[in-house]
Amino acid sequence: MASNYSQKAGLPPGTLTYLGVKPEHDIKISMIDYDESHLEMKVIEETNVLPTYHAKSTVSWINLDGVHNLDLISEIGKIFTIHPLMLEDIANTSHRPKLEEQDEHIFFTLKMLFYDESSAELSSEQVSMVLGKNYLISFQEYEADIFDQVRERIKSGSGRIRGRGADYLVYALVDAVVDSYFEIIEKLEAQVDLLEDRIQFEPDKSDFHQIMKLKKEFANIRRHISPLREALGFFEKSESKLIDVRTKYFFRDVFDHILLASDSLEASRDRLSIILDTFNSTISNRMNQVMKTLTIISTIFIPLTFIAGLYGMNFHYMPELQWKWAYPAVLGLMGIIFIGMIVYLKKRKWM
Amino acid sequence: MASNYSQKAGLPPGTLTYLGVKPEHDIKISMIDYDESHLEMKVIEETNVLPTYHAKSTVSWINLDGVHNLDLISEIGKIFTIHPLMLEDIANTSHRPKLEEQDEHIFFTLKMLFYDESSAELSSEQVSMVLGKNYLISFQEYEADIFDQVRERIKSGSGRIRGRGADYLVYALVDAVVDSYFEIIEKLEAQVDLLEDRIQFEPDKSDFHQIMKLKKEFANIRRHISPLREALGFFEKSESKLIDVRTKYFFRDVFDHILLASDSLEASRDRLSIILDTFNSTISNRMNQVMKTLTIISTIFIPLTFIAGLYGMNFHYMPELQWKWAYPAVLGLMGIIFIGMIVYLKKRKWM
Amino acid sequence: MASNYSQKAGLPPGTLTYLGVKPEHDIKISMIDYDESHLEMKVIEETNVLPTYHAKSTVSWINLDGVHNLDLISEIGKIFTIHPLMLEDIANTSHRPKLEEQDEHIFFTLKMLFYDESSAELSSEQVSMVLGKNYLISFQEYEADIFDQVRERIKSGSGRIRGRGADYLVYALVDAVVDSYFEIIEKLEAQVDLLEDRIQFEPDKSDFHQIMKLKKEFANIRRHISPLREALGFFEKSESKLIDVRTKYFFRDVFDHILLASDSLEASRDRLSIILDTFNSTISNRMNQVMKTLTIISTIFIPLTFIAGLYGMNFHYMPELQWKWAYPAVLGLMGIIFIGMIVYLKKRKWM
Amino acid sequence: MASNYSQKAGLPPGTLTYLGVKPEHDIKISMIDYDESHLEMKVIEETNVLPTYHAKSTVSWINLDGVHNLDLISEIGKIFTIHPLMLEDIANTSHRPKLEEQDEHIFFTLKMLFYDESSAELSSEQVSMVLGKNYLISFQEYEADIFDQVRERIKSGSGRIRGRGADYLVYALVDAVVDSYFEIIEKLEAQVDLLEDRIQFEPDKSDFHQIMKLKKEFANIRRHISPLREALGFFEKSESKLIDVRTKYFFRDVFDHILLASDSLEASRDRLSIILDTFNSTISNRMNQVMKTLTIISTIFIPLTFIAGLYGMNFHYMPELQWKWAYPAVLGLMGIIFIGMIVYLKKRKWM
Amino acid sequence: MASNYSQKAGLPPGTLTYLGVKPEHDIKISMIDYDESHLEMKVIEETNVLPTYHAKSTVSWINLDGVHNLDLISEIGKIFTIHPLMLEDIANTSHRPKLEEQDEHIFFTLKMLFYDESSAELSSEQVSMVLGKNYLISFQEYEADIFDQVRERIKSGSGRIRGRGADYLVYALVDAVVDSYFEIIEKLEAQVDLLEDRIQFEPDKSDFHQIMKLKKEFANIRRHISPLREALGFFEKSESKLIDVRTKYFFRDVFDHILLASDSLEASRDRLSIILDTFNSTISNRMNQVMKTLTIISTIFIPLTFIAGLYGMNFHYMPELQWKWAYPAVLGLMGIIFIGMIVYLKKRKWM
Repeated sequence: MASNYSQKAGLPPGTLTYLGVKPEHDIKISMIDYDESHLEMKVIEETNVLPTYHAKSTVSWINLDGVHNLDLISEIGKIFTIHPLMLEDIANTSHRPKLEEQDEHIFFTLKMLFYDESSAELSSEQVSMVLGKNYLISFQEYEADIFDQVRERIKSGSGRIRGRGADYLVYALVDAVVDSYFEIIEKLEAQVDLLEDRIQFEPDKSDFHQIMKLKKEFANIRRHISPLREALGFFEKSESKLIDVRTKYFFRDVFDHILLASDSLEASRDRLSIILDTFNSTISNRMNQVMKTLTIISTIFIPLTFIAGLYGMNFHYMPELQWKWAYPAVLGLMGIIFIGMIVYLKKRKWM
Repeated sequence: MASNYSQKAGLPPGTLTYLGVKPEHDIKISMIDYDESHLEMKVIEETNVLPTYHAKSTVSWINLDGVHNLDLISEIGKIFTIHPLMLEDIANTSHRPKLEEQDEHIFFTLKMLFYDESSAELSSEQVSMVLGKNYLISFQEYEADIFDQVRERIKSGSGRIRGRGADYLVYALVDAVVDSYFEIIEKLEAQVDLLEDRIQFEPDKSDFHQIMKLKKEFANIRRHISPLREALGFFEKSESKLIDVRTKYFFRDVFDHILLASDSLEASRDRLSIILDTFNSTISNRMNQVMKTLTIISTIFIPLTFIAGLYGMNFHYMPELQWKWAYPAVLGLMGIIFIGMIVYLKKRKWM
Repeated sequence: MASNYSQKAGLPPGTLTYLGVKPEHDIKISMIDYDESHLEMKVIEETNVLPTYHAKSTVSWINLDGVHNLDLISEIGKIFTIHPLMLEDIANTSHRPKLEEQDEHIFFTLKMLFYDESSAELSSEQVSMVLGKNYLISFQEYEADIFDQVRERIKSGSGRIRGRGADYLVYALVDAVVDSYFEIIEKLEAQVDLLEDRIQFEPDKSDFHQIMKLKKEFANIRRHISPLREALGFFEKSESKLIDVRTKYFFRDVFDHILLASDSLEASRDRLSIILDTFNSTISNRMNQVMKTLTIISTIFIPLTFIAGLYGMNFHYMPELQWKWAYPAVLGLMGIIFIGMIVYLKKRKWM
Repeated sequence: MASNYSQKAGLPPGTLTYLGVKPEHDIKISMIDYDESHLEMKVIEETNVLPTYHAKSTVSWINLDGVHNLDLISEIGKIFTIHPLMLEDIANTSHRPKLEEQDEHIFFTLKMLFYDESSAELSSEQVSMVLGKNYLISFQEYEADIFDQVRERIKSGSGRIRGRGADYLVYALVDAVVDSYFEIIEKLEAQVDLLEDRIQFEPDKSDFHQIMKLKKEFANIRRHISPLREALGFFEKSESKLIDVRTKYFFRDVFDHILLASDSLEASRDRLSIILDTFNSTISNRMNQVMKTLTIISTIFIPLTFIAGLYGMNFHYMPELQWKWAYPAVLGLMGIIFIGMIVYLKKRKWM
Repeated sequence: MASNYSQKAGLPPGTLTYLGVKPEHDIKISMIDYDESHLEMKVIEETNVLPTYHAKSTVSWINLDGVHNLDLISEIGKIFTIHPLMLEDIANTSHRPKLEEQDEHIFFTLKMLFYDESSAELSSEQVSMVLGKNYLISFQEYEADIFDQVRERIKSGSGRIRGRGADYLVYALVDAVVDSYFEIIEKLEAQVDLLEDRIQFEPDKSDFHQIMKLKKEFANIRRHISPLREALGFFEKSESKLIDVRTKYFFRDVFDHILLASDSLEASRDRLSIILDTFNSTISNRMNQVMKTLTIISTIFIPLTFIAGLYGMNFHYMPELQWKWAYPAVLGLMGIIFIGMIVYLKKRKWM
């Protein structure tokens, strides 16, 4: 899981570098151009049609599902006059969520999270957005279906999305991503629920490893959520003309959702730490049972064995050995010791 | 306990979605319309009478005891021109306490907490309020009797409630909810008291589980209280015309109560952690007693058993066996070892 | 120790409720009226003399040593036009330290702490003060002698108290209370000192319980001190005409004292946690000694006992048994094993 | 690792003192003077050529790879009128990262980190920079190759460095240092990865020591990173004319990198603490296995040995000894006890 | 170590009280009066010469090496019109570092720390300073040599001290004290170094006590350093005419030193906590060794002893006893069990 950010060391700032494992697919550029009355959806093959959309007053959403073609990114950068450091941030997929304002653009980056239930692996993908006047360019690492619902809403014209600007589109996309966080958190919560039930009865080593695994995953999600909270806060405070005052209320809403996600995460972490305490206490309790059993057996039989050993000695002059009632007497003595020990142990609540 | 927020994923913002388990009862709309000289209480059957109240200069308190009829909520939204995101927040019952200000409305949401002593279960219900000019619309998930005292006060005209505006009514309702928190905290405190007494004598596994249960419940309450504290702080700072300056002093008071509740909670948590330390120490102390007993018995009898075993050997030429005083001599030696061990163990304070 | 704040639930705000155990004594109203040249001290029987003092330009200090007579408090409230919520706060003795400013009054409440050394119990009493123009009304739960020193200084005219206003009197009273905190902290510190000495030698269960007790008491005191620090900070920042600028320097001084008390408390808590670590380490070290002893005895004698058992077998054909030197040889072998084990254990530093 | 800052005690402020181990090499002064059209690189032998560069409008970067020649530093200080306290900070190599603004200069100091993989040792070197109008003087403790990439970029004219001022050069150098942090963090992350794999199977003492070692190193790096974050924040807020507004965006970028490094560090620390928990749990689990084995063996054989000892007694009147089926009966009894014990232990899941 | 602040309880504010153990020496008043061209050093016998210095435009540094003569302090207070609360703070030696500004004076107090290496005891002494126009009055509890270096610099005229005002003198003294902190921190760091080496091999109880001792001392130093940091911050922000703007840069420098000291302290605390973890782990590891040995010996010999006991039984009809090869067969069986056990234990890595 070591990151590989250091590959960039030694390069001049603004140098585009792709840090991920280079995927094999070509980058698909999809375009949706819309306003209340108009809708155009297509896949763009040649970047030379883009300057047309730059100039239009309709909202143009250009989505790239790959950032490993650096020439392409740099070309788009030129068409829309995006700052070189923004382009660098787009290509560099190990960024933390942040918002950057420049004169003509707002740059926003966050992580999509995916949770594969079969392998119980959490993975993430970086999404970057460049918001300009009347257009939004979004960059994903791979094709993912989280944005499909937004496309659907634009297509069907449901909700208020068609009547608003590109800033509202940013909100809609961020909201879709944040909603997807809840799905993952809830999947993990369900695992915490299961663990909580199981831990009270027969916790074993595998439960411990699952506690640790969940702990790691919650820490992981939190790493993406807390800077995102901060970055989202900037939308509300932003004085950029690119953000409509009506949209700010919506950003405030998605900010509240992130707080809620944060809260759920903290609640799960709290529960996990209670589960860990319970696990440790159960293990230690079981150990105590083991030690008690050892002590009971030893405490009872070691003295008895000594007495038996005593009369197993071969001295010639041991008068007791000749006595007729010696054997039953010794057996009786042993019985008394045995019962005495049991009573003592019961009294101390060790049995 | 997994939340189910993710059901909303993919829906356009402002879509009303009810996330809870759909209760079967119909939603009752109760209305209290009052000023100092006038009082009208009734159950509203048709929403078409509501616009009348919207216009009146008396305070109109409209209470709905259910949020699962989305058509009804949306209709009320239209009558009072409530922002779609506010309506969405009302229907979504997994919100954290918050205050939202809009031009015409202040939206406030918090949780009622209920503690069922027989099952020792903590449950919560969301209450949302929309404060407008001269009216307050409150939404509960179920019918709950916490607000009855406020109704009683309006009816009897006791206190200053009849002479003040709808903002004061918000305060009265929030105050009623916060007061009910104290009841729950005190019930839990009483359990901590009991636990504190019991833990010093015979702590067992069930005590541990109760400590963990209380810990979880305190964490739970805290999750509702800390954002509420924050949200209440906004009332004081609010510059909205909807909040009278005289009412702010009252909000400051309920804010102080929340701080006090917070303090009590922290104190209980501190006590709980001392109880846990004591529990662990007692368990470990008991274990040490067990191990000491094992060591004492072993240390005393193992050497004695060896000596007995020695003279149980069957060699032909063991001159001691023939000696007349050998047996008493060996018994004496064993006695000396026995006493010596006891003295040694007493000196080391293990007995 | 469960609080009983919830008794107030359901009452309209501003309702006077006494939450403590109702003491049996009557409330004594004592009055000191003074300026640089004039001094009048008396016990007031009838509240109808109070309006006279309200109007006077001398400083009037009215002290009530009980808050359970709600009629009386409400009467005084009327005479001095005190806000109903302030009166409620006076009667409610489970408040956290706070300062409230109103047009005509400053309300300040804090806790007196008492430590009974014989029972080692910490108790607290609430003191509330209402500062008005030229007068101060103070409310105690019981008669306590902490304020006697201030009375003495007024009587004797020592210090600058007679030449200053009612705000300086507030300072003098708060200073007296804060100084009394130091007495308690020092008594507890002395116990920490004793514990620190004792813990290194023979810690036992009672030491553990004392550590926990002190921990609880420090947590308790801290609960009163930290909001007080905050509340005192407001005196300095206050822009009320009731607080003379010259007095602010004195409030800054008592604020510094609270910081110092806070520091001492933290230092004691740090020391206590070191004591707890030492305690745990000593207990675990002692346990290790026990286990080592068990291991030493077992390791040495179990193999020897086996050898003895071997030659205690009754087979007919055991040629060694007939040999003349077999017995001494076996004894020698046992001796070698014994010495070998001791050497081995010494080498591993277990003996 | 004790620092040696106290050697300065007793000296007047502004006294140049070199605290490190004095290296033997002479200080090399290298100079790069450039603007977009001009480039001059040389090694300076005599400081008397420096005043010329002071006056020039091209960017002059003077780099010293040693700070142990105090006369030289003081001479340079005079030529560029650097504040004596700045000179003292340059010579004192145990500083924490900081930024100081003076009328004519901005002083910035940070640490280069080096990680020697063969010895697994982390070392650091202080770099100080004095930014003046059109010139930058940088001071390293030893010659290090981190800055070579920047030199290369200046030489080749790649990127925008040749067209910008000395402030951009500061950024480029700081960026180079920060990028080198990632290399180290990633090397340590790789070790954490290895540890994470190994710990689940056969953790041993050496793993514990490596966990502790990494913990120490992460703490060490963090000590350098957190004040650096603070100091870098000042560049953005600075209102000095020495910092061009266009360069601020770049400082914001390197600030983001430091945040990212900080995040990675925290993530590694979290993982390390999970590894430590796993280590401890595994060790304790293994111990439990050991104790269980002891208990199983003892529980089974101690009672059996007692029975054998019983019939090894030498009493004359033990009727069972004469019975024909006594021996097989006792063997059978032992077998039953043996099997019974095994069943019992299996049932309790100890076997 | 209990403080004795409570002796002041009940006294009017501004009452001079000396809280320390009263030293026996007389208070020496030493005076240094200087400007760039002039220097006068003498011991003052009578306070009536002081008013002369009050009026002079040269810098007058009056140092008292004792604060137990309250009459003297009060006399000086009158001469220089020092606020009574400042005088009280001077006499009260249990203050936390702080800065107070008044119209004519700045009061500053901090702690000198002393570390006696032979007894390994940390002690502290309070230094208070009253800065007025052209004069500085400093109060120490005992005569200490930390200020000698500053005296030396004034005498020799080295550095810039003679050319600056009394504010620079304050800086010089504070700087001398802060530098002395480093000496102590480094001495303690050296102990941490030693501990770090020792702990990996043969940690014993005394190491534990040293860890705890160092922990206590670091906590102690921190208690003095953190409020000092705060207080020093005020110098920079101060708008008093008593502080020259040029001197602020120097206060910023000493502020940085305190941050550095703080950092070193934190680093040492981190290292100490790693040492403690290592200690605990080593102890627990050693214990595990002990338990393993016990288990090995028991596991091997308890079954063998049982077999020996079996054939030590005295039944008449035990056919095996008569068989010729029974004895060697049993010996062989024992050998097989012995080797089998060893193999099993080796496999589980317990041997």
